[in-house]
Amino acid sequence: MNGSRPVKATAPQTMSGALCPSPLPAGESVLLGHGSGGKLSAELIHEIFLPTFDNPALALLNDQAMVSVNGIRLAFTTDSFVVKPLFFPGGDIGSLAVHGTVNDLAMGGATPLFLSAAFILEEGLPLDTLRQISASLQEAARACGVAVVTGDTKVVEKGSGDGLFINTSGIGVVHHDLALSAGNARPGDKVLVSGPLGDHGIAILAQREGLALETAIQSDSAPLHNLVAALLATGASFRCFRDPTRGGLASTLNEIAAQSQVGIELQEHRVPVREQVRGACELLGLDPLYVANEGKLVAIVKAEDAETALGALREHPLGREAEIIGTVINGPAGRVTVRTTLGTARMLDMLSGDQLPRIC
Amino acid sequence: MNGSRPVKATAPQTMSGALCPSPLPAGESVLLGHGSGGKLSAELIHEIFLPTFDNPALALLNDQAMVSVNGIRLAFTTDSFVVKPLFFPGGDIGSLAVHGTVNDLAMGGATPLFLSAAFILEEGLPLDTLRQISASLQEAARACGVAVVTGDTKVVEKGSGDGLFINTSGIGVVHHDLALSAGNARPGDKVLVSGPLGDHGIAILAQREGLALETAIQSDSAPLHNLVAALLATGASFRCFRDPTRGGLASTLNEIAAQSQVGIELQEHRVPVREQVRGACELLGLDPLYVANEGKLVAIVKAEDAETALGALREHPLGREAEIIGTVINGPAGRVTVRTTLGTARMLDMLSGDQLPRIC
Repeated sequence: MNGSRPVKATAPQTMSGALCPSPLPAGESVLLGHGSGGKLSAELIHEIFLPTFDNPALALLNDQAMVSVNGIRLAFTTDSFVVKPLFFPGGDIGSLAVHGTVNDLAMGGATPLFLSAAFILEEGLPLDTLRQISASLQEAARACGVAVVTGDTKVVEKGSGDGLFINTSGIGVVHHDLALSAGNARPGDKVLVSGPLGDHGIAILAQREGLALETAIQSDSAPLHNLVAALLATGASFRCFRDPTRGGLASTLNEIAAQSQVGIELQEHRVPVREQVRGACELLGLDPLYVANEGKLVAIVKAEDAETALGALREHPLGREAEIIGTVINGPAGRVTVRTTLGTARMLDMLSGDQLPRIC
Repeated sequence: MNGSRPVKATAPQTMSGALCPSPLPAGESVLLGHGSGGKLSAELIHEIFLPTFDNPALALLNDQAMVSVNGIRLAFTTDSFVVKPLFFPGGDIGSLAVHGTVNDLAMGGATPLFLSAAFILEEGLPLDTLRQISASLQEAARACGVAVVTGDTKVVEKGSGDGLFINTSGIGVVHHDLALSAGNARPGDKVLVSGPLGDHGIAILAQREGLALETAIQSDSAPLHNLVAALLATGASFRCFRDPTRGGLASTLNEIAAQSQVGIELQEHRVPVREQVRGACELLGLDPLYVANEGKLVAIVKAEDAETALGALREHPLGREAEIIGTVINGPAGRVTVRTTLGTARMLDMLSGDQLPRIC
């Protein structure tokens, strides 16, 4: 209980300069940006959590841990949900809590099996709200073919929470023998995205701020495990799957580029973004490449398999608008660039600050 | 997103009248007591969660779900921790988050293997506090032989949380072939407890209220998986293990009596309670049988194996003060009674209301 820093500070070998900032100064406090999924989140992870919990499964920094029990390969993941508001176009905190955790398992190519659901309730929350959200959570779980097998409920005093927070953790089983990891991208690989970006973040923001957008934008919240299974069934050589949630596509690609020690170059005109989302982003001064998604995946695949992968994505209802958006290059390690239609290039850094707090 | 109740309302057959209250009225709100581990918690579970998430693993209402993956038996559990204050005599929210989840696995006779750790941080929390608590969590995990393999961090605005909340979920592997369940107690069985009751609750309360107790009472927060392994190694016929956390011994025994459709009779003079805890309880108007423990277990065992079990408990550092405290009887299903030294008997109901909110 003294204030000294943890002593086991061995950083994993896969960390790059871009994701390994100078230590957080002592005396600092938690900022909203520490939950953004961007630079400040990475600082917390690299300065506090990785050195403290130092172990190989965690050090891979994937969306899920791969562990082995008596020879069975399991994926294990956890996510807390603090999204505000609780209900939004296209979903609610209950369905989101299922999709988020199912997708973290799916990004490891795992078949999701079991979920836990733990609720932190604020005194005064209407029980009808809890009923609705529990029913939505269960309906989403049923649709994914997973069972909520264990749970927990805590209550905090009025003013010490915000309605309700949900943690879901999940277990999946891994049948493939690919080594999927954000550290596996190689120069020449292609970058695919399963559909248009930014829907979730803009749907939440529009709801929260009461924006009267011309067309209501729905969250893309959806479970991706069947889409991943379809991709794996092609036999293509995938390097990794990621769902670009908090921090958006830009932060996800920065993580992959840093962990793989490669560059990534995007073709701007290839990156799908709905017109309404682009319009809302212009209105709000946001870049859709930094806005959260909850039903999209990024796949890194060996170049010769890119068209096969694209075909498999487009055959699936959740991948109809998939595109090959870029290439892994032998450029400066950790650098992501966007080549515009005019031929110029701009750097795409990780998200700084707290563009959209409490998006999931 | 309508306000109707979930339709899949089949309740498990193991529920008894005592744990199956009349439906919560519509329009009601969450009360602090819904997190107490007592009557109101049971109402939430039986009226909302069980009918909604209806599945056999959950319906057993054990501290952990038992699931099977390719023939391997796994235990899976989740717990959120909202204890206040974050640091208390004998531990902190970090070590507690490990012990609580390890113990939920241990009560199923599982060997704990992997933990997740998910943090909900309030904006403004000193990073040094996060460092200290992460280090404590890791130290507790290391001491238990479990690895924190996956994690998550969310941040909420100042005033929307309370410093930090932690969720830990855990996976363990089950090697024994006993059917351990709170529904398995049979008339004649003996009830054992591994040591004196109420230390954790009184330690938290004393710290929170700034009580100047004569002797500082330490939380009993401790991992019980090795103690359970020692018990299982005796080959005794155990019916179930439970750790009497929120709601205390009284609530735990009420759950067992209800789920097993039996009565339980305690011998008051056999129930171990430290003098200081008894004194503090008298001062505060609390009954130690309702006060939370975080390093004690209750075991129900076949009568002829009770002395063997007691011997194994007392040989272990965490069970030196173990006692046989009562008997399962063929009395009214779900009723727990305490026989006093004077020969009179009193009913020991589940905890009502919110005796000690945010104890874990």
